Amino acid sequence: MSSTLSNRQVRLAKRPEGAATRDNWQFTTEPVGEPAEGGVLVKTLSLSLDPAMRGWMNEGKSYIPPVEIGAVMRAGGVGRVIASRNPAFAVGDTVYGSLGVQEYLLVPQEDIKRNGLVKIDLRAGSITQWLNVLGMPGMTGYFGLMDIGEPKPGETVVVSGAAGAVGQTVGQLAKIKGCRAIGIAGGQEKCDWVVKELGFDACIDYKAGPSAVRDGLKAHCPKGIDIYFDNVGGEILDAALARLARGARIIICGAISQYNNANSAPAQGPKNYLSLLVNRARMQGMVVFDYADRYPIAVAEMATYLKDGRMKSREDVVEGIDTFPEALTRLFTGQNFGKLVLEVAKD
Amino acid sequence: MSSTLSNRQVRLAKRPEGAATRDNWQFTTEPVGEPAEGGVLVKTLSLSLDPAMRGWMNEGKSYIPPVEIGAVMRAGGVGRVIASRNPAFAVGDTVYGSLGVQEYLLVPQEDIKRNGLVKIDLRAGSITQWLNVLGMPGMTGYFGLMDIGEPKPGETVVVSGAAGAVGQTVGQLAKIKGCRAIGIAGGQEKCDWVVKELGFDACIDYKAGPSAVRDGLKAHCPKGIDIYFDNVGGEILDAALARLARGARIIICGAISQYNNANSAPAQGPKNYLSLLVNRARMQGMVVFDYADRYPIAVAEMATYLKDGRMKSREDVVEGIDTFPEALTRLFTGQNFGKLVLEVAKD
Repeated sequence: MSSTLSNRQVRLAKRPEGAATRDNWQFTTEPVGEPAEGGVLVKTLSLSLDPAMRGWMNEGKSYIPPVEIGAVMRAGGVGRVIASRNPAFAVGDTVYGSLGVQEYLLVPQEDIKRNGLVKIDLRAGSITQWLNVLGMPGMTGYFGLMDIGEPKPGETVVVSGAAGAVGQTVGQLAKIKGCRAIGIAGGQEKCDWVVKELGFDACIDYKAGPSAVRDGLKAHCPKGIDIYFDNVGGEILDAALARLARGARIIICGAISQYNNANSAPAQGPKNYLSLLVNRARMQGMVVFDYADRYPIAVAEMATYLKDGRMKSREDVVEGIDTFPEALTRLFTGQNFGKLVLEVAKD
Repeated sequence: MSSTLSNRQVRLAKRPEGAATRDNWQFTTEPVGEPAEGGVLVKTLSLSLDPAMRGWMNEGKSYIPPVEIGAVMRAGGVGRVIASRNPAFAVGDTVYGSLGVQEYLLVPQEDIKRNGLVKIDLRAGSITQWLNVLGMPGMTGYFGLMDIGEPKPGETVVVSGAAGAVGQTVGQLAKIKGCRAIGIAGGQEKCDWVVKELGFDACIDYKAGPSAVRDGLKAHCPKGIDIYFDNVGGEILDAALARLARGARIIICGAISQYNNANSAPAQGPKNYLSLLVNRARMQGMVVFDYADRYPIAVAEMATYLKDGRMKSREDVVEGIDTFPEALTRLFTGQNFGKLVLEVAKD
């Protein structure tokens, strides 16, 4: 069957200086092959668009190799098995894996593990939830908060990017674990949703004025911040550092405010880092892939929260593989509201 | 006897903007009283001059209250009990405590604990060693390295201010614990001493050129830095961040390069802090006072190293209380070579 299919792909044409634009991408169309013995052919349904993608476009050593020029852009996603010569996968199975920004992925047997191809159960959550709470962002929030943050009941947890994919998980999980959850997000609409829909104790609109974050943290964290989960870096990280409680933990998960710096420009350093000394606090980086062995346990726990309504999720779905370049830029301007998902095919 | 004594004191006259100068100090002379029931009169022998003193001169919240304008400058030191109405202290005892920059300290019973007054044993180490390896700097190095750094044999430990009081302890202790020790210090003479006398594996002269630290860390830490003990902040912290090994630990003990910033100017933030993320590393602040309950255990361990020659110490002794203002500034220009001690009286 697959011999009649053609595969539309988005490849990295050149590395961006600053923000990525359509010029950085090249669209190609290739015929789709058939799986060899042990292989699987997956049709992409939905892809996860993440801030980390901007980093993968840069040259140089990071926690993961850069996407090579001319290669299909890396992306995690949910797909459907449409042909299989591997007994572990049947036609019709829903799978999660590193599918890339393309309509189809032919996975030879030897690459199944490298692509992280695993069957997923849509009874635990919808396709978009599997890219959100049950996927990479949810796992990031879970292990960052639980393993590095080590939350204790009654503590104050602050998370930036609160309406984003990681942030919504962190705040809701903090509440489930008995903490106070204070979000930071851009705009009143997002803040209202974070408080009213997700049940955060408060949410600070960083767009509300130059001292909004500082004043908001002062108002909502009278005993200081015990855990700060940082997705943004820059001025907001500095404001959080200035309000740490004794023994605070900062999880460095990302720095979206700095990702579009030109490649040669380093990030803005946290001027208030000596607050770590004064408050005997620690700041620790995390990469979610390190916890892959424990994803199933976390997914099982999160699925129960989704089922009993204690965990809600919101996805912002953009349709069509051709919209990928513009969809991605929404992340860096804060235009997305909820986990950004690119729907490549309905089913 | 004490009624005939007069007490020369150094008080904080005004808070410095930038580097402290003689104008920031006021010299006073007061008669010395006699101890009331339960009290002790201590004659200052030697005082510890530490980078942290610059911070105590600033207004505002820190890990310890600032020295008030008009108050005797805070300083830890070794003294001799010359009058006592407290059964725990006998005339002739050598004591360590927060004596202040003055010739005598009259300690009422209720202040003995607050001043941290404890008897010390000169068989374990000399007076200057009690201000160095066995004192605050040694304890800082010990608990910073052991508790936060958690060194494992074979790991690479880098310490800035390697010829200073904390640095010499950290590097030697790292060697004792089976690690490689790489120092960073200012000038060839200090570097030679750190390697030849203290047994560090290498020492990088940060004054040797603009890329000396970066190149030196690259050469001497081929597998990256497992533990970085930071006493200086600024560019050197950034160079260390750029060379972290996976899972590295950074101990933030001080930032002498930033202490003379005007009060309103924040420290230079570490631009390379996202290396924490890439390398799943942590950066943690420490204040030595938190470990006070465990000083005796650490002192006992360090005393054995002094005795068996595995731990060496070097002190830079300046004489005379009147030289205090200029002596203190030597710390910030790197003029001291070894732990800086102000000898107030011979005995």
